[in-house]
Parts: sequence; structure tokens; C-alpha cells
Amino acid sequence: MPELRRDPVVDRWVVVAPDRRNRPRDEAGGDPVLRGDPAVCPFCPGHESETTREVYADRPEGSAGDDPAWTLRVVTNKFPALVAGGDAETRSEGLLERRNAGGAHEVVIESRDHAAEWSELSAEAAERTLFAIRARMRAHAADPRVRHVQAFKNHGPSAGASLEHGHAQLIATPFVPATVREELDGAERHWRRNATCVYCDLVDEERRDGRRVILDAEGFLAVAAYAPRVSHEAWILPAEHRASFEECDDASLRGFARVLRETIARLRDALGRPDYNYLLHSAPCRERGLRPYHWHVEVLPRSARAAGFEWGTGIHIVTTPPEEAARTLREARI
Amino acid sequence: MPELRRDPVVDRWVVVAPDRRNRPRDEAGGDPVLRGDPAVCPFCPGHESETTREVYADRPEGSAGDDPAWTLRVVTNKFPALVAGGDAETRSEGLLERRNAGGAHEVVIESRDHAAEWSELSAEAAERTLFAIRARMRAHAADPRVRHVQAFKNHGPSAGASLEHGHAQLIATPFVPATVREELDGAERHWRRNATCVYCDLVDEERRDGRRVILDAEGFLAVAAYAPRVSHEAWILPAEHRASFEECDDASLRGFARVLRETIARLRDALGRPDYNYLLHSAPCRERGLRPYHWHVEVLPRSARAAGFEWGTGIHIVTTPPEEAARTLREARI
Repeated sequence: MPELRRDPVVDRWVVVAPDRRNRPRDEAGGDPVLRGDPAVCPFCPGHESETTREVYADRPEGSAGDDPAWTLRVVTNKFPALVAGGDAETRSEGLLERRNAGGAHEVVIESRDHAAEWSELSAEAAERTLFAIRARMRAHAADPRVRHVQAFKNHGPSAGASLEHGHAQLIATPFVPATVREELDGAERHWRRNATCVYCDLVDEERRDGRRVILDAEGFLAVAAYAPRVSHEAWILPAEHRASFEECDDASLRGFARVLRETIARLRDALGRPDYNYLLHSAPCRERGLRPYHWHVEVLPRSARAAGFEWGTGIHIVTTPPEEAARTLREARI
Repeated sequence: MPELRRDPVVDRWVVVAPDRRNRPRDEAGGDPVLRGDPAVCPFCPGHESETTREVYADRPEGSAGDDPAWTLRVVTNKFPALVAGGDAETRSEGLLERRNAGGAHEVVIESRDHAAEWSELSAEAAERTLFAIRARMRAHAADPRVRHVQAFKNHGPSAGASLEHGHAQLIATPFVPATVREELDGAERHWRRNATCVYCDLVDEERRDGRRVILDAEGFLAVAAYAPRVSHEAWILPAEHRASFEECDDASLRGFARVLRETIARLRDALGRPDYNYLLHSAPCRERGLRPYHWHVEVLPRSARAAGFEWGTGIHIVTTPPEEAARTLREARI
């Protein structure tokens, strides 16, 4: 079973998952080797027996689970970082703490089409992915051992994808991860000081300023992040205050799908189809009503890699000013 | 002038440095293009006019600054992330804070040999690099505007190097970076609870346990990190309690040089000459006597890249258990 270990000095947990070495990629050589050939792709129709059993699917009436007639499937990752089961106890030996990596790690196979990039799917197919993510987040939130669900996408080898066929992922953790905790703390601090939500205030300020706005539609604002970790980092902020993605209604998810698709399409046009990640930040489970938090998505096109300075200090260096990034993205041809 | 910007929600600063786009590398294409040819390498002897003027050098008696008779040179980075000058004031517009990126960014050109990797230099040449880093850290520490100096090395394109000729770097910042602050806080917490240094306790514990020890020599312990961010992450901990690298005497630096060289040599043998970073963690400037802190170096061979889960949560996933990494590294042939 994979293991969670805590750094002896700082509040940083890592997952040690030796079984992930069996993934179809070559970690030692640096970049992953993508299994690009649909004939051997475990996510292509007809290869259902090469994945674990589906936990969710969109399929025509009458078709049975794990048969090839699906339009979208969610399966447990075959090489999971976190897994169901095991006890939740933390074990300490002096300074050193560890616990079972109990949780879940799922893959959303977005479509039947091996080569389709997410933003190029039909509106309906793109929406389907987000409905699947919402359904799985709700399912995990019902598990009392799960405290947070991180949904994300790795597109392309330099963004960490080990399979080419388009997919998103969900990882459920038994605690609130540090990065999410920092956002919760920042939002809480702002709320105590101003009695307003920092993300709501940011939406107002960015709309008023206008220089970093990429797109404002359907109740969602896409902006070039003011303090980006990579050049052209984009944030998508719902104008409506809501702590959790799971709380969104269908109409809202459809509007979000359009703005996310268009933002990614603009990044792809402007930057020559870069690899990218998107990260869905949502409140911890069972804190739906959490007043100061506000769900959102961060999109990171991959260009420069983090180097020694970033690893040593946490300070990222970018070369494109966000105001220029937003201008480029507004002018992209999609 | 480059700019420091603070994230509106969390305590994360980034540097926006548009001039760094003029570096001899191709950021848009993903991986940097190394200028590998010594004939056009600005760090090779005879090309001194292609760098800024040297701020420190090892050269034979009688040779003049910036002439080609050097054995080691330190110059200001031609495309700096942080620069001297500018006012230190923070400017706020509503939620958004920024300030001039005042500080320093220097390059230590380790040797005359274009192709030499640091751990393959002679003992004397390797020591020379560390003496240069200590001298420049001391010089920056004397500047009241500087609060911290991060020394580090990027070896190879996937570790963020944009030039092939072996070099280390120093970046001086006007505040204590978040990652360093977290370590200081963790060490302070441990001190309050136990009245001991967490790093001293870790040295004792790792020596007693033995499973993660790579090398124990010259008063320095090299261990596979208990909670690594990348597989085979190694830490080098001085057994003697000292907050700052700058405080080390010559004998201690020589011992450290040997242990760092041997650790990197073992990583290179075991992992097939991977790209790597080393990060020197030292106390903030003018806090030399800082009781709970303990300088050390972290070495990160680059294998898998951080993907969406790591960016979203701060939780890294590794596949090699540290106990196995240490065994492999102990058995490496150097």
C-alpha cells in the first residue's frame, strides 16, 4: 500500500508509491514515454478489460458496465497514488511520521477519441467531463474518511501525462493538502479583515481594471493571474460566490465548460499547443457552506521548468507580464 | 526593472522579469536550447567580454580583472531575476501588491573547463566553488537591504540550466522566501517544544536508524530524505550545529565539498547521469546566531516532472522508497 510521509521539519506530506513504477512510462529517462498508439491504448474503446472496472460512465441505455458502448468512463487508476482501505492511523518513530495513503485515485476517460484534446471536443462532450467530475467529487465527499478531492488534468508529457488518450484525474486525500489550506487561510484572513470574500473582491477588481481580463462570459471571469507561477497562467473565477464545485447546478457547469474550453483554446492558439495542467480548487469535503472560500480553476501552460531557485525558495520567475499575456490571449484566433 | 508580485490570496511572491526572455534559450518550445558549443560559450576563457564584469575571481597573482587567466569567476547574471537598485517600497492597488525586484543575481563560473560536471572536478576546484559561494553570501549579507541569499545549482536542461558550462548561482532577496520561512518556523516550533534543534535530532535519529544513510564522513551526514519530493532526493546535514553556511571555517567547507561531491557522484552512477539541482539552505542574513536553525543542502536529481496533483496540492508523489534509494546509492560505484 502506498504511504504518506511527513517531512520532519515543515508541514509537507509526500506519497511514496513504489507500484507506480510499473506504469507504462520511463521515469528514469526523464520524460515519460507516451503510449501513443491507439492499438495498445488501454483507454480506447475495446480495451475496457485493460482498466479497472468503471465506477461511473455515460453510456446508451441498455449497454452494460465495462462494455465498449460508452461515451465517457471513470475508472480507478491502475497505479494509484492513494487507495481505498487500510487504517488511518499515523505512526511516529521519533521525528518521522507516516500513515497509509488511504483515499482514492480515479481517471476520467473524457471521450472515445484517442487523439482529441479536451478544448476541441464538442460542447456536449466537454460538459460531460465536468458532470462526471462533479458526480465523483460528490461520491467521495460522502466518504467520512475523505477530507479533500483534487480534480486536475495533465495534458502532454511535460505536464506529467503518462498516457496520450485525453483524461482528467481525481485524487481524494484523508487531509486538506497544504496548498488548499494556504488558500483557505488567506481567504479566512481577508474575511476577518473585510467581511468580504477575497475572490469576489478579486473578480470586481479585475473587471474594473480590465488589463488582465481574457474573457468574461456566462458568469465566469478568465484572467491572467496577477502573480503567475508560469507565464500565461490563467484563472477562471465564477462571479457567483460558492465554496464548492460540487454545489454548481447544471446551467452553471455548462457556462463554466464554455469559458474553460475557450481559455484553453486561446492558450493553444497563442502558445503553439503547449502541454498544460488545469487544477480545480474546491472547498474541503463537508464544508460546502464554508463562507470565505470560493471555488475556481487554475490553468498552467507548461513552458519553462521549475529550477533550483523555485525549489529552494518557492518564488517562481516568469518572463511574460500578465497584462501582456492577457492581451495576447484576447487576440488569439479561435 | 523586474518586479516582485504577491498573490492576492496566499503568501506567494513571484518575479516578473521580461528581460529574461532575451536569454539564449527558447522558453516557448519547452526545453531550453543549450549553447553547448565552447566556441560560442560566454563562460569559456577568452569570452570574458560577453559577461558582465566579475565581482569575485580566483586568478594567479598579477592577472587583471576580466582577463582570461582566471580559474573561477563570479559575475552578475546578464539576465537577472533580481537587480541592485530601485526603491524597496511596496505598492498596493486594492488586493494587488508589487515592489521592485531589488536584490542580486550572480553566476559562479566553476571552472575553465566547458564540459566538466561539478562532482568530476578536482577536490581543490570543487572546494573553490564553495569558497566563492561563501564569500559572495558574506558580501550580500553586509547589504542591509538583503534578507536572504539562496545559493543553488541547475545542472542540465531539465533542471533549468540554460547554459551548459558548469555554474552555480546566488539570488539575494529583500525578504525571507516562503520555503525558507517554513523551515525556520518548523525548527522554531521544535525548539520551543524540545529545547533541541530539529536538524541535530534528525542527524542522531538517521545515524541510529541507518537505513537512509548514504554516507557519513568529515562531520557531514548524507541521507536519502525521509519525505522526498523527487525519487532519490538526498540531504547533506552538517553534524555540527550552525545556522549559516557563511559561518563555516575552511576545514569544514573542505569536508562538506567532499561529501557533496561524493553524493552527486553516487547519484550520477546510480541514475545514469541525471540532471540535478542542489539547494543550499542557510539562515536569513544577519541571523547568524539564530539558535534553532541549521544550514544544510538538498540535492534533487530530476526524473519525473511535477504534474497537476503536485501543483494543486503541494503533495509530491515519488516511486522509490528512500530506504531503497539509500541502498542503491551506498552500492554505487564511484
